[in-house]
Amino acid sequence: MTGQHRTPVTVVGLGSMGSALAEAFIDAGHPTTVWNRTPSKATPLVSNGAVHAHTMDEALAASPLIIACLTTYENTMEALEPAAARLKGRALVTLNSGSPAGARQLAEWALGHGARYLGGAIKNVPSAVGAENTLLYYGGDNSVFEEFASTLRVLGGDTVYLGADSDLAALYEMAVGGTLLPALVGFFQGAAAMQARGLTAASMVRFSVKWFEMINSVLPVFAEEIDSGDYSKPASSVNLFLAGAAHDEELGKEASLDMSWHKPFHDLLERAVEAGHGDHSISALTEILKNPGHTGQLHSVEGEVAATALA
Amino acid sequence: MTGQHRTPVTVVGLGSMGSALAEAFIDAGHPTTVWNRTPSKATPLVSNGAVHAHTMDEALAASPLIIACLTTYENTMEALEPAAARLKGRALVTLNSGSPAGARQLAEWALGHGARYLGGAIKNVPSAVGAENTLLYYGGDNSVFEEFASTLRVLGGDTVYLGADSDLAALYEMAVGGTLLPALVGFFQGAAAMQARGLTAASMVRFSVKWFEMINSVLPVFAEEIDSGDYSKPASSVNLFLAGAAHDEELGKEASLDMSWHKPFHDLLERAVEAGHGDHSISALTEILKNPGHTGQLHSVEGEVAATALA
Ligand SMILES: NC(=O)c1ccc[n+]([C@@H]2O[C@H](COP(=O)([O-])OP(=O)(O)OC[C@H]3O[C@@H](n4cnc5c(N)ncnc54)[C@H](OP(=O)(O)O)[C@@H]3O)[C@@H](O)[C@H]2O)c1
Ligand SMILES: NC(=O)c1ccc[n+]([C@@H]2O[C@H](COP(=O)([O-])OP(=O)(O)OC[C@H]3O[C@@H](n4cnc5c(N)ncnc54)[C@H](OP(=O)(O)O)[C@@H]3O)[C@@H](O)[C@H]2O)c1
Repeated sequence: MTGQHRTPVTVVGLGSMGSALAEAFIDAGHPTTVWNRTPSKATPLVSNGAVHAHTMDEALAASPLIIACLTTYENTMEALEPAAARLKGRALVTLNSGSPAGARQLAEWALGHGARYLGGAIKNVPSAVGAENTLLYYGGDNSVFEEFASTLRVLGGDTVYLGADSDLAALYEMAVGGTLLPALVGFFQGAAAMQARGLTAASMVRFSVKWFEMINSVLPVFAEEIDSGDYSKPASSVNLFLAGAAHDEELGKEASLDMSWHKPFHDLLERAVEAGHGDHSISALTEILKNPGHTGQLHSVEGEVAATALA
Repeated sequence: MTGQHRTPVTVVGLGSMGSALAEAFIDAGHPTTVWNRTPSKATPLVSNGAVHAHTMDEALAASPLIIACLTTYENTMEALEPAAARLKGRALVTLNSGSPAGARQLAEWALGHGARYLGGAIKNVPSAVGAENTLLYYGGDNSVFEEFASTLRVLGGDTVYLGADSDLAALYEMAVGGTLLPALVGFFQGAAAMQARGLTAASMVRFSVKWFEMINSVLPVFAEEIDSGDYSKPASSVNLFLAGAAHDEELGKEASLDMSWHKPFHDLLERAVEAGHGDHSISALTEILKNPGHTGQLHSVEGEVAATALA
């Protein structure tokens, strides 16, 4: 494919993700300039047709659209700083992970140097870059999204503009990503229980997959309850989950597992009951999580001091 | 449809789930006898063609296959006890929730009365009973599963025999189900963060659904690592998750959320690092969960007593 009529793009940062991004632009025929702190990582991309910029100034000068994918927002500012004057009038798009506050800070810095800024996030692994189903979302300067939409879509078919705030991608990323570790630990616990019985973790995968599909099917209902604040028509009540919590302990005993990570969940359920949500939908836990009074401190349960933060 | 050549079935327990089970058998043309402690719940089923047994003895006498769906295993024994002699030679299938120990106890009791026992579980809601994709799994007497497979398949197209142990369905049910509350609390936290910004929970649903699909796609890899015990080729390492844990705290601050339920997860990560798993796959947490020494007690983190169980 010839890059004649495609938007020139510069990719800053050639780690696992940045390299995959650059590769996708090259494959789609975009004139692609690459920069990395450790220059050797540019080699495979150069042999596929990328131009290797040896200075940040060259890198930024080469394209109207700069895609940065370093580890953090701080790293990004640090790397761009020596050539910050070159950002003026250019579109800067970040695709690293980080907090909303970090995104806002970078946005302020970039705007201060006259850049047009779009804060993005990629909700997938490097090998998925470029696929039809791969999700990338962006918040910030809408004119950047509009002008470069077809170029950005090279990175994934499911490309979404969230709104004008530059930290929206970081915010959604965190809000959505917060299920990962808890869900995985739940799965690992199940796997440990399997092994305690001489069964394989593999034997439960197909059932777990179905279970997450079931969870997916109920999320719209929970979201509606949360958005309306009406928890009074529960498909599954807080009390039902509390009754199930007793079974959890039995699983722990069966398989000699460390179940200590369950305590805060039981605590949340207890606090929801105390707050009058016993017969309400389990989604009423959202209201308990909003209670900042408890931040950082575990709560006493039924006269038993379950856990005390002394930090 | 005529029930002439279909296996007669008795359904004991007509709560939300039991009623759905009985309905499915009636719809499929099985001569269906029903019993419930509170007799009025039989009325809608009788008008659809079920026979109402007024005593447990009548209920059990009516069919070679008895499906019980009461709240617990204990309730089930209690309800069947007055007519236990009638179980002799009959196939008893339970579909309630409960612990593996409860299933074993019921199996022993049922076998003691000469029943052939199959312990089942239905991994779905009452409205899904009968659907092609609905999963039910069973453990116990294989001859019961073989003899009544087509009848059991009336309840859901995805009907699975797990093995000869009568508690296998309860075990898988717990192992698989352990992701539900943690995953939901993660979602509710995200929803609370959205609301703190004036955004809706509904706006994150489609991204969360995609995220759970991504999680599903990696479960086979994690299962393989766990089954082989080889955690050395991580797609995502324990250290990567530990680095991400810092961001969690920022989300909590951003949205004034109660993040106390994160502590045990950070603790698991720290303990995994201490055990030498820092650069290993996150699935190595399975090994930490297997450590019964820590059961019921949260661990101190970095010189700070994160939480102490005094119970
Ligand atoms: N990999 C994934 O699955 C994935 C998925 C979604 C999002 N992300 C996010 O994408 C971002 C990059 O991830 P990755 O997997 O590509 O990471 P990686 O392989 O570790 O690469 C990190 C990149 O950042 C550069 N860097 C770090 N600090 C720097 C500094 N102070 N100055 C200049 N360059 C610096 C590194 O340069 P050197 O080569 O010189 O060290 C390298 O190019 C992260 O925020 C990550 O969370 C990754
Ligand atoms: N509903 C679901 O989404 C779902 C999904 C999967 C599995 N399950 C499991 O299926 C089982 C039944 O659930 P459900 O939703 O049908 O519950 P439910 O609507 O509360 O019905 C409970 C049933 O158990 C009976 N019962 C309870 N204690 C009894 C006793 N001591 N003696 C005689 N009968 C007794 C009740 O009789 P009365 O009518 O006389 O009270 C009623 O028929 C539970 O183990 C549940 O966890 C339910």
